[in-house]
Amino acid sequence: MDQIVASPEPLPDVEHSHVRFDDGLALECGVHLPELVVAFRTYGTLNAARSNAVLVCHALTGDQYVAEAHPVTGRPGWWGALVGPGRPIDTERFFVVCANVLGGCMGSTGPRSPRGPGEAPWGTEFPTVTVRDMVRAQRRLVGHLGIGRLFAVIGGSMGGMQVLEWAATFPELVFAAMPIATASFHSAQNIAFNEIGRQAIFADPDWQGGHYRDHGRIPARGLAVARMMAHITYLSEEALSRKFGRRLQQAAPVAGPSRGGETPLGPLSDMFEVESYLRHQGSSFVRRFDANSYLSITRAMDYFDLAAEHDGDLSRAFAGSPTRFCVVCFSSDWLFPTAQSRDLARALNRAAANVSFVEIESDKGHDAFLLDEPDFHRTVAGFLAGAAERSGLA
Amino acid sequence: MDQIVASPEPLPDVEHSHVRFDDGLALECGVHLPELVVAFRTYGTLNAARSNAVLVCHALTGDQYVAEAHPVTGRPGWWGALVGPGRPIDTERFFVVCANVLGGCMGSTGPRSPRGPGEAPWGTEFPTVTVRDMVRAQRRLVGHLGIGRLFAVIGGSMGGMQVLEWAATFPELVFAAMPIATASFHSAQNIAFNEIGRQAIFADPDWQGGHYRDHGRIPARGLAVARMMAHITYLSEEALSRKFGRRLQQAAPVAGPSRGGETPLGPLSDMFEVESYLRHQGSSFVRRFDANSYLSITRAMDYFDLAAEHDGDLSRAFAGSPTRFCVVCFSSDWLFPTAQSRDLARALNRAAANVSFVEIESDKGHDAFLLDEPDFHRTVAGFLAGAAERSGLA
Repeated sequence: MDQIVASPEPLPDVEHSHVRFDDGLALECGVHLPELVVAFRTYGTLNAARSNAVLVCHALTGDQYVAEAHPVTGRPGWWGALVGPGRPIDTERFFVVCANVLGGCMGSTGPRSPRGPGEAPWGTEFPTVTVRDMVRAQRRLVGHLGIGRLFAVIGGSMGGMQVLEWAATFPELVFAAMPIATASFHSAQNIAFNEIGRQAIFADPDWQGGHYRDHGRIPARGLAVARMMAHITYLSEEALSRKFGRRLQQAAPVAGPSRGGETPLGPLSDMFEVESYLRHQGSSFVRRFDANSYLSITRAMDYFDLAAEHDGDLSRAFAGSPTRFCVVCFSSDWLFPTAQSRDLARALNRAAANVSFVEIESDKGHDAFLLDEPDFHRTVAGFLAGAAERSGLA
Repeated sequence: MDQIVASPEPLPDVEHSHVRFDDGLALECGVHLPELVVAFRTYGTLNAARSNAVLVCHALTGDQYVAEAHPVTGRPGWWGALVGPGRPIDTERFFVVCANVLGGCMGSTGPRSPRGPGEAPWGTEFPTVTVRDMVRAQRRLVGHLGIGRLFAVIGGSMGGMQVLEWAATFPELVFAAMPIATASFHSAQNIAFNEIGRQAIFADPDWQGGHYRDHGRIPARGLAVARMMAHITYLSEEALSRKFGRRLQQAAPVAGPSRGGETPLGPLSDMFEVESYLRHQGSSFVRRFDANSYLSITRAMDYFDLAAEHDGDLSRAFAGSPTRFCVVCFSSDWLFPTAQSRDLARALNRAAANVSFVEIESDKGHDAFLLDEPDFHRTVAGFLAGAAERSGLA
């Protein structure tokens, strides 16, 4: 059988730097979380005026380990090319903060957290959180760090949703905002893709109605399928074709049932390279992510719709905004296509906000915001440099 | 738990019209199928000259019930709007034939068939079949029906792959060919989507290593997830947005775990309409399709690459072709995008074939070939009428 995940190990309980707020957090759904933990990492030094803080917001499967080795996987930080000394987000100049999102599984309050001190984990009973809840948790962290106003908030994909939510909810606290490869709402197609991922998790026998940890199990196959599918949506057709085309690689000694068992198949028993790649993506993901967090965070993305509480007029979400915006998208991103970023820039224009709009030519799809795209890196560096000048940062 | 499929019933063993070839079929993979059954339906009357036969080729999840109620689901034929008296494929003029593909589950030889007379079903050991094998099985049927040359071969998606294979393998037997919403090869992205579907099936505990029927089970959840995912790829983002947008519908009385169990959520406990729609698509599919067939047929699509045996020069697959081609695609089809159809038309041009190319403006995505698209229907009617005149059909 072509199983992707042989015997997955549970996500290890690693100690993460964090701050605990004993008064908890009132969520949009009406539930009051009795305690709130925000796990975070910082890079660089906060200046005396506390005016050089850049908040980085991570995407669905990202975390706070932006520019250092990941404590679980040992892999380099997901934005190491962008954040660091002399990098576009220069840690010799800026104090960079990144928090694990509410609902996540890298130390912030989420399904793996206890319901209260000494109690069992929330698991599948973890309340519905929204992108606004995530941002309000980050707001607590920012206050705790003694930062009055953020110089910039920046992030891609779901990170970009948080950027927009920050600017809409706390306009006075955000000097500059860079939403990347994102949109002001999750489209029907994106909701549909998320729903397939959730159904794949529910279909896994190790899901156990969400109580997999109690049974010492992980819905690894379902989570891997969800990740594989999401991963395709992150890549453009061009990127997949260039990377893999229709190249075959020799099948494993035991051929899968779909390829005819032990019959003499010749090249028809081989596996396409793209299949092998996806299986690897799926199996490595389950070692660092929690299924209940995946459900919680995808649901938050699906509910995101900034214009909804303004009768569909997105510009009203940003009325009177003092923030400087730079909206960035990638030409081959079909998950968050250029048209959605353009609509966002137009709404900001209608709100008389200070906004620039940049479409980066790239054939790498949605993933481009995580990759080494020189034009993109120049855009980030340029926007931050210009905004720093305006804000009076030395 | 948000289960899509409560208690699926097994695919019923329905009697299908068929022809049996006792000498079997030698497959491309090297296996000789000891017997070959081709299940088929016909509409209209073969004329005295036997010159008015139109072979319709069905897609991945289609079957031979083109223009009549389906014996399992009771639903109308999948191309009923296109095939019938006075329809674009006019059964008062043409003799329409459609066969269930080799590897299918509606009566033709496939994983549900016995290995030999009185033996157990192939199941997961069914040999790898290719699109060419499918076409060679249809060739046997066409001969059995006493048809020397087909007036036309027509089909969409994987049906279009069969059309191209017919024209490449049996050029003298095809007067006119209409490949619709298809390509001469399966792209890396399409292979990737198919692979996710297969992995979803393998991840289902009821898969039972492919021996689900022996255990009286069906990998219904995995098959439903595969179908749901494929279904998204059949629709355009525009179609999904128009059809569902971000509209919510009230959640079922027992809210799913991903939405926080029994906590007071208000609108955050609702389900998006697109989710409900996809679940319905998934659950209705498993009642009419076999998981091993799904694996077999998706694999055949993945291996399809007409240019491969001509050093990548597609035009050589059609060198000297006497067939008249009309290549049809839909502007919003992102699974088989216009560029692939255009490349196909160019290759046919280089082969000095008689080819016309039509891109239908539609925002309905890949699915458009199954829907009521007046421009598309006019194109089919027009091409067949012109070809009929040329061929001397009354």
